[in-house]
Amino acid sequence: MACSFINVDEDSHFPIQNLPYGVFRPLRHRGCMPRIGVAIGDYVLDLEVLDKAGCFDHTRVSGKGVFARPSLNAFMAMGRDVWREVRSTISRLLDSNEPALRDNFPLRSTAFYRQREVEMMLPAEIGDYTDFYASKAHAVNVGTLFRGKEQALMPNWLHLPVGYHGRSSSIVISGTDVRRPCGQIKPQDSAVPIFGPSSQLDFELEMGWLIGTGNKLGEPIPIGEAERHLFGLVLVNDWSARDIQAWEYQPLGPFLGKNFATSISPWVVPIEAIAPFRIPAASKQEPDPLPYLQHRKMTSFDIQLEVYWQHASNDSRERISASNYSNLYWTIEQQVAHHTVGGCNLRPGDLLASGTISGPAKESRGCMLELTWRGTEPLHLNNNQEKRTWLADGDRITLTGWCQGDGYKIGFGEVTGMVLPAAR
Amino acid sequence: MACSFINVDEDSHFPIQNLPYGVFRPLRHRGCMPRIGVAIGDYVLDLEVLDKAGCFDHTRVSGKGVFARPSLNAFMAMGRDVWREVRSTISRLLDSNEPALRDNFPLRSTAFYRQREVEMMLPAEIGDYTDFYASKAHAVNVGTLFRGKEQALMPNWLHLPVGYHGRSSSIVISGTDVRRPCGQIKPQDSAVPIFGPSSQLDFELEMGWLIGTGNKLGEPIPIGEAERHLFGLVLVNDWSARDIQAWEYQPLGPFLGKNFATSISPWVVPIEAIAPFRIPAASKQEPDPLPYLQHRKMTSFDIQLEVYWQHASNDSRERISASNYSNLYWTIEQQVAHHTVGGCNLRPGDLLASGTISGPAKESRGCMLELTWRGTEPLHLNNNQEKRTWLADGDRITLTGWCQGDGYKIGFGEVTGMVLPAAR
Repeated sequence: MACSFINVDEDSHFPIQNLPYGVFRPLRHRGCMPRIGVAIGDYVLDLEVLDKAGCFDHTRVSGKGVFARPSLNAFMAMGRDVWREVRSTISRLLDSNEPALRDNFPLRSTAFYRQREVEMMLPAEIGDYTDFYASKAHAVNVGTLFRGKEQALMPNWLHLPVGYHGRSSSIVISGTDVRRPCGQIKPQDSAVPIFGPSSQLDFELEMGWLIGTGNKLGEPIPIGEAERHLFGLVLVNDWSARDIQAWEYQPLGPFLGKNFATSISPWVVPIEAIAPFRIPAASKQEPDPLPYLQHRKMTSFDIQLEVYWQHASNDSRERISASNYSNLYWTIEQQVAHHTVGGCNLRPGDLLASGTISGPAKESRGCMLELTWRGTEPLHLNNNQEKRTWLADGDRITLTGWCQGDGYKIGFGEVTGMVLPAAR
Repeated sequence: MACSFINVDEDSHFPIQNLPYGVFRPLRHRGCMPRIGVAIGDYVLDLEVLDKAGCFDHTRVSGKGVFARPSLNAFMAMGRDVWREVRSTISRLLDSNEPALRDNFPLRSTAFYRQREVEMMLPAEIGDYTDFYASKAHAVNVGTLFRGKEQALMPNWLHLPVGYHGRSSSIVISGTDVRRPCGQIKPQDSAVPIFGPSSQLDFELEMGWLIGTGNKLGEPIPIGEAERHLFGLVLVNDWSARDIQAWEYQPLGPFLGKNFATSISPWVVPIEAIAPFRIPAASKQEPDPLPYLQHRKMTSFDIQLEVYWQHASNDSRERISASNYSNLYWTIEQQVAHHTVGGCNLRPGDLLASGTISGPAKESRGCMLELTWRGTEPLHLNNNQEKRTWLADGDRITLTGWCQGDGYKIGFGEVTGMVLPAAR
């Protein structure tokens, strides 16, 4: 098994098999431009420094300055063959048997930062953000709670990967605190809405694909070609205000109930790193989808997912949900094929999120709405000293996820954010 | 009344009172960078040339190169005081009594292009596109057609300006032809959906505001301050595939039914140019909206709007709808206040479209869905030689609009596009 000269714990999310990309800035040089790095163990490897040192001279990124940028978009646009060249170069340079970087101490001293000494930024300029609704358990649960059991799953749900356009401007990087939104809410016992802070603030356990290469307007991506457009995967917390959402969402979908913040994790795990963890999805597709959604290689990924709750006044966090990416009914290849089938163009850096990843088991539910069954079954936390139906001010939600290899993890790090009280 | 030394017909959309901004490239220098210009009569005035000649030396844009860019975003971000400085400078320079430009023939020879000698581009990088649903007549008509009379207007409609997030990547400039999308459609007599070209292709007569200065995440824009964030207004055709939309839109809103193309006009008419045409909205708001949506100056604009149909095989076009901006129930100030009240951030260049602008009269309906009452009352066109329930391949739709002044028009030019047959 490949092994780096950089020491990596067995529990680390970032062994040499992972090599996720991110955009960072050293804390002690705040004035300097953000640039692109790769996570290895507790370190960030500065790709711009490697590029300047000639490490990528034999690749197609050489001389293009794609790592001296505040986003991955230019690199994403170069395509899969270039990503592969760069990944295999970095993998070789970090290998314990390769002296080029290992024994070049001047270069090592400028190319590595400790992760705690850098600030992570959004990894890409996200032109458009699409949120799907791909977990059947989630769709059934939410549908039951909002519309009753009879209309839980809309007739279209089993035929197409339902999705909608989200808000790009309010996507924030892990660590950004999230202010409780105010908005219109219609109490059940009132004929008219009131205005005030949301009292049904929620998180959503999601993952999101960042698009590498896009397509031209009017030229759909066939499902068999979808995979090569995928750059990598991040954790997504699609914060939601259920009371605002419930009142506003008909007939055009969620708006203010979702657009106040969406948090993503900083490290983009390349699709190549998780390719060994392909498994069948947890549930078979029944009925068969239409031909444009059928794919020889219709597989999901075995990614373990966890949600942790912690209040600002507590020292430790506690797990409130454990799910798996494979609970998703629709695959990302199906989502890409569907998204573009009418001609819609994807661009490098676009985010395609999964929707809440709930499984059939109660403990695998991916949001408070489901975990507390719309507030009727509170969570008892912190040794029964705290009760939650929805998120309270000061609550911190952290999502994490990883693929478990034999003696290593392909991890996604985490996405975390704390709830701030509503303004005024 | 102000008058330019450039000859402007009484019917021109672009007198000295208008001065809309756009991004253009001379057709004979296709290799050169797009830059920013202003329309005057049949000409485009190149602001980059004026800037280099020192015409803006006394203003805050001087030396910043904001006009040598392929989008208005940098200029938009500078704020209302700067926009006013620049507008009054251009207005003065174009005035028939001002010799500075009028008598400087070398400068005139490089600063002006004929409009037919330039290619217009998208005026801004549109980070996020929001589409509202602000005409009551339209909401009632569509609701009746999709859900029946009882549920036509959802209970929320009179309380908040319903809107949703649209797709930014597929916004195209006037003149771009639009390919008929394929997608999932569920015939009424079938239990399952089929895949094929949309047979219910539609246009939507809309207008859209481009945001000038944005707000920080978490910091709402109060309604009293909304106006100063508005840069200007364009025509919008939100192409729609009604059969795709009807099957997909529940519960998360329109997706593929809308995201294959949205066309906008190239000239952004500054809010200052249409300020003299403020009038009350056509219908009073009843019930009173919540306080955050109440505004001392709750006014609309008197903008006459027309839709023209023409088939590729015909020489002339014919008018199929005539509406007015003042048919909108919700004001743009209310939309900005609502959009940001939960903390969502707007950015320079964001597009806030109105939704279809239908009036109460049948001839003022702003889309085929309403004009033909979902296909049951066909339009008879071209001296009864053509019948349309929905748009056919080769149909060209052109939207136009203007404010009628005393002896002049503040015009929006037009947004046009022709329907291409579905792929393959």
